[in-house]
Amino acid sequence: MSDLRIAEARITPIAFADPPLLNNAGCHQPYALRSIIEVETEARVIGLGESYGGRSVLDGLARLAPLLTGLKVTDLNGLWSAARTVVSEGDSALLPRLVGAVEVAMWDALGKSTGQRVCDLLGGQVRQRVPYSAYLFYKFGRHAGADADDSWGEVLTPEALVEEARTMINLYGFKAIKLKAGILDPEAEIAGLEALRVAFPQAPLRIDPNGGWRAETAIKLLPRLENLIEYLEDPTPGLDGMAAVQAATGIPLATNMCIISPEHLPPGIARDSCRVILSDHHYWGGLAASRELARICAVWGLGLSMHSNSHLGISLAAMTHLAAATPNLTYDCDTHSPWQTDEVIEGGKLVFKEGELEVPDGPGLGVTLDRSELQRLHRNYLEHGYEQRDDAAEMRRHWPDWSFARPRF
Amino acid sequence: MSDLRIAEARITPIAFADPPLLNNAGCHQPYALRSIIEVETEARVIGLGESYGGRSVLDGLARLAPLLTGLKVTDLNGLWSAARTVVSEGDSALLPRLVGAVEVAMWDALGKSTGQRVCDLLGGQVRQRVPYSAYLFYKFGRHAGADADDSWGEVLTPEALVEEARTMINLYGFKAIKLKAGILDPEAEIAGLEALRVAFPQAPLRIDPNGGWRAETAIKLLPRLENLIEYLEDPTPGLDGMAAVQAATGIPLATNMCIISPEHLPPGIARDSCRVILSDHHYWGGLAASRELARICAVWGLGLSMHSNSHLGISLAAMTHLAAATPNLTYDCDTHSPWQTDEVIEGGKLVFKEGELEVPDGPGLGVTLDRSELQRLHRNYLEHGYEQRDDAAEMRRHWPDWSFARPRF
Repeated sequence: MSDLRIAEARITPIAFADPPLLNNAGCHQPYALRSIIEVETEARVIGLGESYGGRSVLDGLARLAPLLTGLKVTDLNGLWSAARTVVSEGDSALLPRLVGAVEVAMWDALGKSTGQRVCDLLGGQVRQRVPYSAYLFYKFGRHAGADADDSWGEVLTPEALVEEARTMINLYGFKAIKLKAGILDPEAEIAGLEALRVAFPQAPLRIDPNGGWRAETAIKLLPRLENLIEYLEDPTPGLDGMAAVQAATGIPLATNMCIISPEHLPPGIARDSCRVILSDHHYWGGLAASRELARICAVWGLGLSMHSNSHLGISLAAMTHLAAATPNLTYDCDTHSPWQTDEVIEGGKLVFKEGELEVPDGPGLGVTLDRSELQRLHRNYLEHGYEQRDDAAEMRRHWPDWSFARPRF
Repeated sequence: MSDLRIAEARITPIAFADPPLLNNAGCHQPYALRSIIEVETEARVIGLGESYGGRSVLDGLARLAPLLTGLKVTDLNGLWSAARTVVSEGDSALLPRLVGAVEVAMWDALGKSTGQRVCDLLGGQVRQRVPYSAYLFYKFGRHAGADADDSWGEVLTPEALVEEARTMINLYGFKAIKLKAGILDPEAEIAGLEALRVAFPQAPLRIDPNGGWRAETAIKLLPRLENLIEYLEDPTPGLDGMAAVQAATGIPLATNMCIISPEHLPPGIARDSCRVILSDHHYWGGLAASRELARICAVWGLGLSMHSNSHLGISLAAMTHLAAATPNLTYDCDTHSPWQTDEVIEGGKLVFKEGELEVPDGPGLGVTLDRSELQRLHRNYLEHGYEQRDDAAEMRRHWPDWSFARPRF
């Protein structure tokens, strides 16, 4: 059984091109930071993971990696124990991020070692294809200081938003549409939603102000949102604010902000703060922890969908395996994939058909590293010049008077 | 990957000798009924399971077994789907029992096929040895119509109870003591507990009236139980009755009666009906479902221990693997093992040391079938003359006026 033990774990920070997408926290910088995790077994099977690339995660992974040597790739309990030793007591955000980064690579290594797909190891495929949504952003035409607009151009009006949706849906075939909000005046953003409704009469719509609205603002806007959206994502910050909005509407509230860790589940459920959890294996502690979260959603009658940050193909493959093995995925998953032009897996980006992805073929996650692209994106990281995502600073390069506020409206 | 597919599943009903143990429902019959499940893969690896042997489970397993052919032993979602097709809508008790019976055999087959222990496949061993408790019963000296007392003799007084405990602890080394109650007058049963406290000053004590007391009775008895027991198991029936008792005491209430299925968790937790769940993979739907239950207990701050029915070594091995891989096992597990003289695994019964079991050596569950014993116990089943456990009928063979009542006191 020794061949399932980890011989070495490697972490490679990368930076990939990201468009100037807007959200309540500011604007995406020219590069998104990410970490690529390789877990190599004694039998020289390599399992892959992809996660956050900010300083604290990279530092944590650097402390964790040497402790993985000798651990079996099945030993998730051992991974949690090892991770606890490199995280300060009470840093409840970092611990599951470190575990989630490594855990996916351990599942991939187990799958590649045993000839099994990760979705099979997670309990078996329940859907042939995993549906994703069109993730719309308001955006600037170009990054500050750039010479020309990107291909998407500036999107700050309902008309431009509909155009963005049309392009994305033509390219990928998504059925549901999610609008990142909390940037413009809420009335203007809802006007954007209403324009989308006219242009795409059948599309399930969602709006995500990222906690950018006060609870009273959200409640005042409810009449315009009812019969328009399938769920309302994080209109306002905090379990109490969310509960106040949820109590005022039949629209399910969804969250990836106020229930982001197991300890938020009991109070969130007791207060009825939301009816849909947007899970994310990157911060919930990996695929097994996300499967447990899915089960909790099933038991407590909560809806379940999937959150995403800017990511590449290893994350997308992991999300797809997880979703394929999750019986109670009740909404199409989010993905930033359409916004990314770089890729780190061989063969290039996974291809959506009619808004859906098939589980990649082959054992494990079914993807392998493109090492020349990994090196190129690692050089980007070394050269691009920042170690932490800072959307607020980037926003001020466009709008100098802008400052962070949550809620803003 | 075809070698992980199931070629055939076999179910063998067995009956093994069981002493005349008393509980709120009556008296154990001379034979306990059980089913032995064999899942054989296309590569001719055999995975083992053990579960209930009553008519409804056997009939359900007979309907389910042919549907397993072609299923991968990793495909727990597929197992649930197949089981749903052979269970009437709304039979929420039978479905997880069928799944639990087969699921353990699938884990065993996966482990034996890949050279991994079940505790490793469940997420990794977190404890070297699994602690069990001394499970004390009031009992008759012999079954109705038998010629002579069994070696334990009659136990209906505090003195005999202490003697039973002494024998069991001398033989097995258990540290904690559980008393099955709900039979005698509650004052007499608590006198038994008090005698145990005197004889075993350090032993954590528990009492399980199996819902035999009214909530008011239980509340009246609390002053005698406080500072005496580590938890009070199912003093009274139902979530509301339990909540009333729990609200009146700092003693944690435990249950394997009012929270026995996922749908009981939300109301049970919301009402604070108990603080400890006694899990049982046989009726929770197997090892993966029990792992999820354990996680729910961790997230909601509930204690966790393990329930048992009369069982043989395959069940005990499965319980031990599960407990070994469960970080938040907060109390010693229950087992009926000391009461059983028959065995169905090669090498005879697993051996407790200082009240604990090591995870059996070898891949999968680490146990194999003793086929001659299986045949002998199957002949018992064919010859012993009943198809359903009926403790009440058995009780009336001893105490003709006895009738079932829950609560009784």
